[in-house]
Amino acid sequence: MSSFGKLFRVHTYGESHCKSVGCIVDGVPPGLKLTEEDIQVQLSRRRPGQSDITTARSEFDTVHLQSGCEHGVTLGTPISLLVLNKDQRPHDYAETDSYPRPSHADYTYLAKYGVKASSGGGRASARETIGRVAAGAIAEKYLLECYGIEIVAFVQRVGKVGIPFAEDDNEVLGKEYMELVKSVKRDQVDKEITRCPHKETSMKMEEAIRASKAANDSLGGLITCVIRNCPPGLGEPAFDKLEAMLAHAMLSIPSTKSFEIGSGLRGTMFHGSEHNDPWIEGVDSKGEKVLRTSTNWSGGVQGGISNGEDIYFRRSTARYDGSAGVLAAKGRHDPCVVPRAVPIVETMSALVIMDMLLQQNARQAAAALLPPLTHLPLTMVLPGKGVVNDAAGEKVQDNKVGDE
Amino acid sequence: MSSFGKLFRVHTYGESHCKSVGCIVDGVPPGLKLTEEDIQVQLSRRRPGQSDITTARSEFDTVHLQSGCEHGVTLGTPISLLVLNKDQRPHDYAETDSYPRPSHADYTYLAKYGVKASSGGGRASARETIGRVAAGAIAEKYLLECYGIEIVAFVQRVGKVGIPFAEDDNEVLGKEYMELVKSVKRDQVDKEITRCPHKETSMKMEEAIRASKAANDSLGGLITCVIRNCPPGLGEPAFDKLEAMLAHAMLSIPSTKSFEIGSGLRGTMFHGSEHNDPWIEGVDSKGEKVLRTSTNWSGGVQGGISNGEDIYFRRSTARYDGSAGVLAAKGRHDPCVVPRAVPIVETMSALVIMDMLLQQNARQAAAALLPPLTHLPLTMVLPGKGVVNDAAGEKVQDNKVGDE
Amino acid sequence: MSSFGKLFRVHTYGESHCKSVGCIVDGVPPGLKLTEEDIQVQLSRRRPGQSDITTARSEFDTVHLQSGCEHGVTLGTPISLLVLNKDQRPHDYAETDSYPRPSHADYTYLAKYGVKASSGGGRASARETIGRVAAGAIAEKYLLECYGIEIVAFVQRVGKVGIPFAEDDNEVLGKEYMELVKSVKRDQVDKEITRCPHKETSMKMEEAIRASKAANDSLGGLITCVIRNCPPGLGEPAFDKLEAMLAHAMLSIPSTKSFEIGSGLRGTMFHGSEHNDPWIEGVDSKGEKVLRTSTNWSGGVQGGISNGEDIYFRRSTARYDGSAGVLAAKGRHDPCVVPRAVPIVETMSALVIMDMLLQQNARQAAAALLPPLTHLPLTMVLPGKGVVNDAAGEKVQDNKVGDE
Amino acid sequence: MSSFGKLFRVHTYGESHCKSVGCIVDGVPPGLKLTEEDIQVQLSRRRPGQSDITTARSEFDTVHLQSGCEHGVTLGTPISLLVLNKDQRPHDYAETDSYPRPSHADYTYLAKYGVKASSGGGRASARETIGRVAAGAIAEKYLLECYGIEIVAFVQRVGKVGIPFAEDDNEVLGKEYMELVKSVKRDQVDKEITRCPHKETSMKMEEAIRASKAANDSLGGLITCVIRNCPPGLGEPAFDKLEAMLAHAMLSIPSTKSFEIGSGLRGTMFHGSEHNDPWIEGVDSKGEKVLRTSTNWSGGVQGGISNGEDIYFRRSTARYDGSAGVLAAKGRHDPCVVPRAVPIVETMSALVIMDMLLQQNARQAAAALLPPLTHLPLTMVLPGKGVVNDAAGEKVQDNKVGDE
Repeated sequence: MSSFGKLFRVHTYGESHCKSVGCIVDGVPPGLKLTEEDIQVQLSRRRPGQSDITTARSEFDTVHLQSGCEHGVTLGTPISLLVLNKDQRPHDYAETDSYPRPSHADYTYLAKYGVKASSGGGRASARETIGRVAAGAIAEKYLLECYGIEIVAFVQRVGKVGIPFAEDDNEVLGKEYMELVKSVKRDQVDKEITRCPHKETSMKMEEAIRASKAANDSLGGLITCVIRNCPPGLGEPAFDKLEAMLAHAMLSIPSTKSFEIGSGLRGTMFHGSEHNDPWIEGVDSKGEKVLRTSTNWSGGVQGGISNGEDIYFRRSTARYDGSAGVLAAKGRHDPCVVPRAVPIVETMSALVIMDMLLQQNARQAAAALLPPLTHLPLTMVLPGKGVVNDAAGEKVQDNKVGDE
Repeated sequence: MSSFGKLFRVHTYGESHCKSVGCIVDGVPPGLKLTEEDIQVQLSRRRPGQSDITTARSEFDTVHLQSGCEHGVTLGTPISLLVLNKDQRPHDYAETDSYPRPSHADYTYLAKYGVKASSGGGRASARETIGRVAAGAIAEKYLLECYGIEIVAFVQRVGKVGIPFAEDDNEVLGKEYMELVKSVKRDQVDKEITRCPHKETSMKMEEAIRASKAANDSLGGLITCVIRNCPPGLGEPAFDKLEAMLAHAMLSIPSTKSFEIGSGLRGTMFHGSEHNDPWIEGVDSKGEKVLRTSTNWSGGVQGGISNGEDIYFRRSTARYDGSAGVLAAKGRHDPCVVPRAVPIVETMSALVIMDMLLQQNARQAAAALLPPLTHLPLTMVLPGKGVVNDAAGEKVQDNKVGDE
Repeated sequence: MSSFGKLFRVHTYGESHCKSVGCIVDGVPPGLKLTEEDIQVQLSRRRPGQSDITTARSEFDTVHLQSGCEHGVTLGTPISLLVLNKDQRPHDYAETDSYPRPSHADYTYLAKYGVKASSGGGRASARETIGRVAAGAIAEKYLLECYGIEIVAFVQRVGKVGIPFAEDDNEVLGKEYMELVKSVKRDQVDKEITRCPHKETSMKMEEAIRASKAANDSLGGLITCVIRNCPPGLGEPAFDKLEAMLAHAMLSIPSTKSFEIGSGLRGTMFHGSEHNDPWIEGVDSKGEKVLRTSTNWSGGVQGGISNGEDIYFRRSTARYDGSAGVLAAKGRHDPCVVPRAVPIVETMSALVIMDMLLQQNARQAAAALLPPLTHLPLTMVLPGKGVVNDAAGEKVQDNKVGDE
Repeated sequence: MSSFGKLFRVHTYGESHCKSVGCIVDGVPPGLKLTEEDIQVQLSRRRPGQSDITTARSEFDTVHLQSGCEHGVTLGTPISLLVLNKDQRPHDYAETDSYPRPSHADYTYLAKYGVKASSGGGRASARETIGRVAAGAIAEKYLLECYGIEIVAFVQRVGKVGIPFAEDDNEVLGKEYMELVKSVKRDQVDKEITRCPHKETSMKMEEAIRASKAANDSLGGLITCVIRNCPPGLGEPAFDKLEAMLAHAMLSIPSTKSFEIGSGLRGTMFHGSEHNDPWIEGVDSKGEKVLRTSTNWSGGVQGGISNGEDIYFRRSTARYDGSAGVLAAKGRHDPCVVPRAVPIVETMSALVIMDMLLQQNARQAAAALLPPLTHLPLTMVLPGKGVVNDAAGEKVQDNKVGDE
């Protein structure tokens, strides 16, 4: 259904040609400073017409906050948000296509519901994501303010043009790519109209997109997203592992074709011995002593639970308006939707992390009232607790952990 | 949490060394013939010790049906199933590792819960999947009996050894691979101990696994799964698209690294024009006239909803016992877990399809009581309805649909 | 949270002084004819200012349909509805009470959220129910059109003035009351400004309310609701029994103090032998032969599942704006909220029945594809199946069933 | 379905004559000391055969812990619990009744599922509650240890014999009853075989039950439950108000006929002015200064949220094995099930409070990281914060709050 999340819960609504599109966000922590401007920023990064390589439509999607805030502060009650549609009249069916577009949702919506919106992609259209982006902007604000969590997505590949990914066959993932994962910032990404922060690659991408546009064709691509400063302990085994929730979130974005966590598909070509993340003693974002890993092929998740390292993943798209198909001659379609998908990937990541955080809050706050356990000899440097067992602490220091 | 599904709902429990592992399955249709044997079949395909290239442990996992069935027929009430653990004593912590294994869940479980099972992978271990496989066997039985739905998974690649995937760079996916997707049967898969039905590749895989085993190392790989005869209309936009639910299900399997639907990651390298699924008039599994597509790069899903074509996807694994790491010296680990993951992939697919089917049932049965709509001029050949609008039917027949 | 239902799912939002209040309704069957007028009818029955015995405020709550409908037909996608608030400025805290009103939600909201809406009852106010009533109107329309289900609520008691309930101590419930339960229609209820269809009692109620109003005081009361023509089989054991869902729904209405199903609290004073509903052979609303009961103390529900008889229950209210307290001197409060609660009780009933119907649809449609069971010797007249086992049918006819 | 709760989540299974009945409990806080004995205590209070006025069957329900605990400590993972059934063979249908028992679930189960358990009440039987009581015992242990929350239920009325409830018509609820609500302990309750702690009334109840038993008849009754030391802030507006969740929980117990919170049905006969809970300054269970109310007609809940006062409610039952009917001649039924229902009422209360606590934990822990709000002039004595605004504190002290 049109709901996502368990405790931070988003419900979206709206088709292309109804009065408005929007969402209700339930479970927002009370007392958060929030204005329409906070939300508008991400909506504007999502909207069409930002450059000549995305669609030429000039929508301006202004958000209207309906509820859940007073005096610029969230009340903890549901926040309703809406964006008016420009063209609010449902079309006459006669005006529009009377046969299903290939690789679009026309046929499947009719098969499912026995009726469909007269035009556009209905709920399969890109406009459905407006409600998500608005909701995600709230989550992002909270995560940044309270945890310093940064979520940055960037375009890694368009068609066959991509940022160098691995130098040779014997390397899991290359330095250039991993360096970006580690350091890239949102303004760096937005500097390029392709949203690919690797200047040289970006220029080649523009070329490819313009060529494709000239041929009235379209191109898909690949986006990488990284989540930094996420505390360890997020993700709910067995079925709601952190990577499972991220995969669910990413594949729910229109026209997504794949999801990979950490070293991903490529990583599974390597032996365990080449693909191991040895433990080392390190510090977390607050400078506190914790266990870290010297490599991060796991992508920040082990056993379905975050380990405090950067969470990074890739998500590919064919097109995101409900189609993997050819460009409609008369439609107002993007020659390449990948750049505009960047804030949507970020928003869905924020929704997942926020929800998992609230779930872990519930547990941790409950466990914190119980007397401490004294029978655990495990030697681990846990966040907020230092080395759990000093006696065996040397094992961590001399890195014997990497030997196993 | 440890629940999956909305209407066909599975709850699993159990660690490696507690009394039993198992599940409760809620929402099973009443009146289905069901015995323990129906479930045992898939559990036996999942268990370790089936060949020398998986683990040498000789577990025999016998299922015990607790409730929800009488006289060999389901009552519609919750079905509880359990499998006893061989070694039911939690270990003394002193006996076991006192530091976290690399790329395992030891550290993250402790970070999340502040306590962990004394040994083994706890809930991150492979034994957690026993409850899933048992539940999935019930779903599979129903789907096959009532819809003829076949779910077949097979090993596509181990390490760097794989079934030929695409002949050249200009081809989305190759004929040999697509032929297997179309036709492969479960007995064909089980004939090979690698569960790779491509004989030649299978032999090379065995070689690679044995070499890896000799080096005390481990290998991951890639599994393809196909779901045939699935009716159109399954999948719940916007957030519970069919591919999103499949991705969620697949990434919830321990140590999964990636998910791809249809042409997947590779497909996003191609132009829309090369990657289009043109509509043609065809027949469904019952011989009824419906719209079909001449290619199937979408993987049977458009706009998040099944279109009646084969649903196929790929899911890669590093290891599935909660680790992407090196082989533990003294542990009883598989040199390659990929073959044993095959029934788990099938089971999770069955759980998704079954749940989506029940959700669509609820809607369709409700809509069926409403008077038919007469204002829809759309020309589509809908299942059970033939061509919706005869007047424009020619558009479908002369394949103009492919022109758009 | 602000969501209700599983398959027919309502999400509400809005405080007293934000821009709008409203809801998203997910799971509406596609193809239902629906206009804003269908919804407005119930909203107008709910709004304040309908008579001098409710509040004097003259709100006119006009509904605005945002999505999910085209050309007057539901699309099966989420329907968003909103009603603008007249006074959309959050008050300055200085203007308003700086201490908690007794028996209101001021203190508890602050205890829960650490912040509260500046004025009015926030989410605890009566305006929160606008979204519910709008959503329920859609459910009611479907239920009436497709099943002939009628839902009628009426005021049974105000303060100590009530419709004669039982003639003497030896009677479970009296004839006069049960006659109303069986036959009362909505227009009969609306004829009286008290919404008590028992003319004589209604006049006494008006008197009591006017006296209370003159004394600047307020009165609570009791509402009976009946649901007719509900098919047997609705309700989900063990936790989501039909009466449990109705109780949940009723107690979620602001200021509800009690819920009783069937003979209710009074029924538990009687012996089993006096309080038994013997089976008789009868006909259902379509004239089909089914099992009926000669009395209906169960209130149409047995073992948590509807049995085809009238479902009736009572729900009492102190006040429904979040308070059980005295009338605020300067507030715009109702001297008696009971009449206005009538459409809210109906709406919540409709939401429960609609959701339970969709859940049962999913099961029944799934079970219908399985081969029939032949080993059941039970002699029952099941809806749509007649007497299940003719051989023992005489047992039903000579009413021996009542002997057990 | 057979699940209850959102974060503390119980799934039950089992019929009367299958192998076992039991449950999975998900969301138990990790690190809680827990043994089978902790659970057995409540199961033994629930089991039949405790006295001659309940059933004569001598079941001994021994609980078997399957998972989720090690070394006597919870792991935070799902806890599975089971109790073997004595008679594990489903009966032959020929042996049993071939027509539906009046006021039982025989007919409705068949109408719902098209099949039913061969004998006993299936899921509608009292044995279904075993899984609940086992789960609730875990919740109770946590609530008592970490919050000092006491949950005590007692029998208030059997048939027409009850504890004096109110002395005269002008009193909401009487002193004798309210004194019990305030002070009664579990051992006091268990001292009487009726579980009515009012000695004199208890003796009359025994008499009534024995007379009823001699007449081969059965009696229902009324149970009061009180929850003490519950922190303010629990309950989730709008739909999951605390009283709505309690009502849902109570009506899910087999054969429940009514639920009332606080002054309940009786309270709605009084004017607002007589039925108001004025605020006074007081202390909470830890001796901290907070707002209290001088009366507690609200029953500890305002606007759907707990206010820190005792939460008390009443729940009536006809019979709790799925019937409101006469005693079956040959069945093994209780002449009065009310005493045995006491621990079930307690357990369902514990499940609700535990779940609401975890939900509030999630919110509070999230809000605690935000900077404090400084613009709130509201004068309230909040738990853990003292008087929020000193300037207006006098308003609270001179009790002007009661004037409004």
